[in-house]
Amino acid sequence: MDHTYRLVISCPDRVGIVARVSQFVADQGGWLTEANYHADADNNWFFMRNEIRADSLRMGAEAVRDAFAPIAQEYEMAWELVDSSVKRKVVILASHASHCIADILHRWHSGELDCDIPCVISNHENLRSMVEWHGIPFEYVKIDPENKMPAHTKIMELTAEYQADCVVLARYMQIIQPEFCRAYSGRMINIHHSFLPSFIGANPYQKAFDRGVKLIGATSHYVTEQLDEGPIIEQDVIRVSHRHSKDDLVRLGKDVEKSVLARALRNHIEDRVLVLGNKTVVFD
Amino acid sequence: MDHTYRLVISCPDRVGIVARVSQFVADQGGWLTEANYHADADNNWFFMRNEIRADSLRMGAEAVRDAFAPIAQEYEMAWELVDSSVKRKVVILASHASHCIADILHRWHSGELDCDIPCVISNHENLRSMVEWHGIPFEYVKIDPENKMPAHTKIMELTAEYQADCVVLARYMQIIQPEFCRAYSGRMINIHHSFLPSFIGANPYQKAFDRGVKLIGATSHYVTEQLDEGPIIEQDVIRVSHRHSKDDLVRLGKDVEKSVLARALRNHIEDRVLVLGNKTVVFD
Amino acid sequence: MDHTYRLVISCPDRVGIVARVSQFVADQGGWLTEANYHADADNNWFFMRNEIRADSLRMGAEAVRDAFAPIAQEYEMAWELVDSSVKRKVVILASHASHCIADILHRWHSGELDCDIPCVISNHENLRSMVEWHGIPFEYVKIDPENKMPAHTKIMELTAEYQADCVVLARYMQIIQPEFCRAYSGRMINIHHSFLPSFIGANPYQKAFDRGVKLIGATSHYVTEQLDEGPIIEQDVIRVSHRHSKDDLVRLGKDVEKSVLARALRNHIEDRVLVLGNKTVVFD
Amino acid sequence: MDHTYRLVISCPDRVGIVARVSQFVADQGGWLTEANYHADADNNWFFMRNEIRADSLRMGAEAVRDAFAPIAQEYEMAWELVDSSVKRKVVILASHASHCIADILHRWHSGELDCDIPCVISNHENLRSMVEWHGIPFEYVKIDPENKMPAHTKIMELTAEYQADCVVLARYMQIIQPEFCRAYSGRMINIHHSFLPSFIGANPYQKAFDRGVKLIGATSHYVTEQLDEGPIIEQDVIRVSHRHSKDDLVRLGKDVEKSVLARALRNHIEDRVLVLGNKTVVFD
Repeated sequence: MDHTYRLVISCPDRVGIVARVSQFVADQGGWLTEANYHADADNNWFFMRNEIRADSLRMGAEAVRDAFAPIAQEYEMAWELVDSSVKRKVVILASHASHCIADILHRWHSGELDCDIPCVISNHENLRSMVEWHGIPFEYVKIDPENKMPAHTKIMELTAEYQADCVVLARYMQIIQPEFCRAYSGRMINIHHSFLPSFIGANPYQKAFDRGVKLIGATSHYVTEQLDEGPIIEQDVIRVSHRHSKDDLVRLGKDVEKSVLARALRNHIEDRVLVLGNKTVVFD
Repeated sequence: MDHTYRLVISCPDRVGIVARVSQFVADQGGWLTEANYHADADNNWFFMRNEIRADSLRMGAEAVRDAFAPIAQEYEMAWELVDSSVKRKVVILASHASHCIADILHRWHSGELDCDIPCVISNHENLRSMVEWHGIPFEYVKIDPENKMPAHTKIMELTAEYQADCVVLARYMQIIQPEFCRAYSGRMINIHHSFLPSFIGANPYQKAFDRGVKLIGATSHYVTEQLDEGPIIEQDVIRVSHRHSKDDLVRLGKDVEKSVLARALRNHIEDRVLVLGNKTVVFD
Repeated sequence: MDHTYRLVISCPDRVGIVARVSQFVADQGGWLTEANYHADADNNWFFMRNEIRADSLRMGAEAVRDAFAPIAQEYEMAWELVDSSVKRKVVILASHASHCIADILHRWHSGELDCDIPCVISNHENLRSMVEWHGIPFEYVKIDPENKMPAHTKIMELTAEYQADCVVLARYMQIIQPEFCRAYSGRMINIHHSFLPSFIGANPYQKAFDRGVKLIGATSHYVTEQLDEGPIIEQDVIRVSHRHSKDDLVRLGKDVEKSVLARALRNHIEDRVLVLGNKTVVFD
Repeated sequence: MDHTYRLVISCPDRVGIVARVSQFVADQGGWLTEANYHADADNNWFFMRNEIRADSLRMGAEAVRDAFAPIAQEYEMAWELVDSSVKRKVVILASHASHCIADILHRWHSGELDCDIPCVISNHENLRSMVEWHGIPFEYVKIDPENKMPAHTKIMELTAEYQADCVVLARYMQIIQPEFCRAYSGRMINIHHSFLPSFIGANPYQKAFDRGVKLIGATSHYVTEQLDEGPIIEQDVIRVSHRHSKDDLVRLGKDVEKSVLARALRNHIEDRVLVLGNKTVVFD
């Protein structure tokens, strides 16, 4: 990975934003390796992401931030300057299912996913060996069905201790506490095993089977307090037919789930996903 | 198209059905060009479709039907022996939108769709010239929003007069009367402009746009009295992104709608679609 | 369609291009509705396309062009400022097959394709009625297999007479003269009925059938003097299996051909396709 | 997995085959859970695969085989009766790349792939730990570039020792000896990292990048003595654009490679792939 800075901005749309920002970048000597813009006409909102070669800038990240702050204020920008060499800390929550987490761990292990994974937290022990083989701490938190709060609290504490920048629910089958949702707003990614908004909630493959759909899908979205209603980052589908049993749908769906989650996570950690209301801009 | 007979069967599953039917076919000298079977384990039901070269049979269609009847009775079969040389009469109902009907008419005109189209019925005049250029009668039936029943009745009468075997709703935006649904149960095909069961009812593209989905779709299904709830024949999707306005979704969706409807109709008129409850078996 | 100007640029990459161009646009009061950038690292080349609301500019197109010329010179740009209200003239060359041309004509007729079609030229008469129904002149040019040059010359003359900005080969099965290729370099679009570079030349469906591929495709590309070797604009595929005969491949392939050609043509007439060497940048 | 017998047959086509075979199955009390047929009109050849519930048969596998042999002889059948409870032994050959083998191992470990993996053989050591974590022997065979024959011989010996029914080349980058190809004809599966027949041989991603294709793909095929020319089992593609570098193609292609190989292998070990000449029938 080349060392870059990512200047990610969203603000009210008006004439001259690109000019102002790109002039600023040019003034620092910044060499753009990638630049993306989107004007949302319905909301009159503007989004941009500039990827700048670090070695082309005349100053360091902090100095750039200081220099940019007045412009950001003038244009009422929500913005970040992200240093690509500082890896995001991604904490993974898992339950029993292994396909999504195995996929993420392999992508991480082979260098495809440019992040740190400080720990995996699960309410089952079955994935411990796989996680530890990768050199990642495995935190087992038993959930008492009669009283789930202590476990929820423990998981939030662990997430904080490991300083997670981002939380991935890799087929973690538990409801997330509102407090946890809010703390990781726009930074907690779920994979739902249906093509949302079809088949919200439990047992989507059974529902898909019963409805007789000809495609099944998966959806990765940011978690909000409304179950399966958060901003969608990525979706995909696979063709099925009458020949497939409900178990076949589960099996075929796994491949969609893991690839959809992997793409969503990759785009998130590369700062390619910007949220407006309940929708996303994905500069992929 | 080669001249064939299609022996299409559904019945309770038990040992020996394939043997019994294929022995019958072989006894008549029948040369199978295609044979499809499906055992539905959940409902213990069996489906089969045999396509037999007409010139290989020692007797005509009526004699084959007489000879097969006792077997059908023994196995409690719902069945048909369809002569591929007798073209299905497909009546098309349309409103204002032209993309689906233009697509069907071109496929029919170029010989790709092996059916007759005895007439097109519409509550708008704008498609008359296109339909008539194809040499197909165009029946305009004005719908009075204050009193729709006379129009509904007229449309049912026209469909009967033209002896429709099958009715296609090519983006026909009117509710179908229950009586009409029942008369054409399993023979009336709709195209809905969403990936069902997402976005049932009106304005699915607006709903898809508002939800921020990353794929939009279309669904072709048999019409039942429950709006957009009938057995699904075919579905497909296309990728969209934040760059697409609601009008873009409408435009991109048209291509999915017309290809999904064309595939569904083709499979229907080739007797490849069998219905069980609210689901379909499609031997494509 | 909103009235816009499209400022389309390619030039050697260096620091400050975006800043310079977007400052220029902002200085004219230009409101960007869409902006796309691409830096080709291998060739050190930069591409940009800005779409600007016409009513936001303080001057007309000619004045903008004059004002921009010095910047273009400084940065060694190949550039255009295209007025979206001036429709491109697209001349279509066809042979006997109707699927691609019927698709283009319907998209044009229904207002989806924002161009003029001054005429269709064909070496067969069978499409005359369909073309003329759309109100478009049909020019029949008979090709003598023993001496094709007079026909080639006639077609070039007609193309010039009708002032074609762009030529579409809608399954036109004749070799294009080198002189014609050069005259319409980057403006003549072909649809080849295979997934290039597989199955170059004649009978690609037969070749695909013989090889036993599991997907067939189509490719739209700019025509160059090397048969089927020009810059690819768009490709797509469809799944096939052992059940499909060679005729099925031809039938299924038609749907891919027409959608690939339609997407390529749309992107071309919206100035979204930029060529570098034998490759394209497509800002779709 | 239910215990079944798979009766897989290919033979010259003639009237009555299905009747004869299905009567035989019915006479043994055989309950069909799945039945597939294909008549290849070009070669006048017939293919069938019957999956029969083991507990429905009145006799064991050996007795069924004895009883069926005369029928097979009469119809000149190539055939097998496969017991689904006897797991195939799949030996994997790998080099340095981990994505395909990690994917197969996880599918096997999670019970999705119903086979045994008696060993993995590689000319690199880097995958040892991953393979051994799964409880599978790892055989390192160093290949001397100056004299590859001893290594080739060793690999063939190991394959024989471990009694491989099937060999998978999971991005194994070495040429296979003709003798090895012949010994495992129709049982050795390769994954090639292009959409064949495009980009045969080395560096297909570089070739795809240089040609500027808009989709890249992968192909799984049976290995023959002609490099990348064997019968294709499965293919798939993924969309790319000008934004993707050659390294991006490599990364995106990995996902296609592993899913294509997994589907091909699954179909192979479930006896769903039948070969005729250089093409396959895949009853999926």
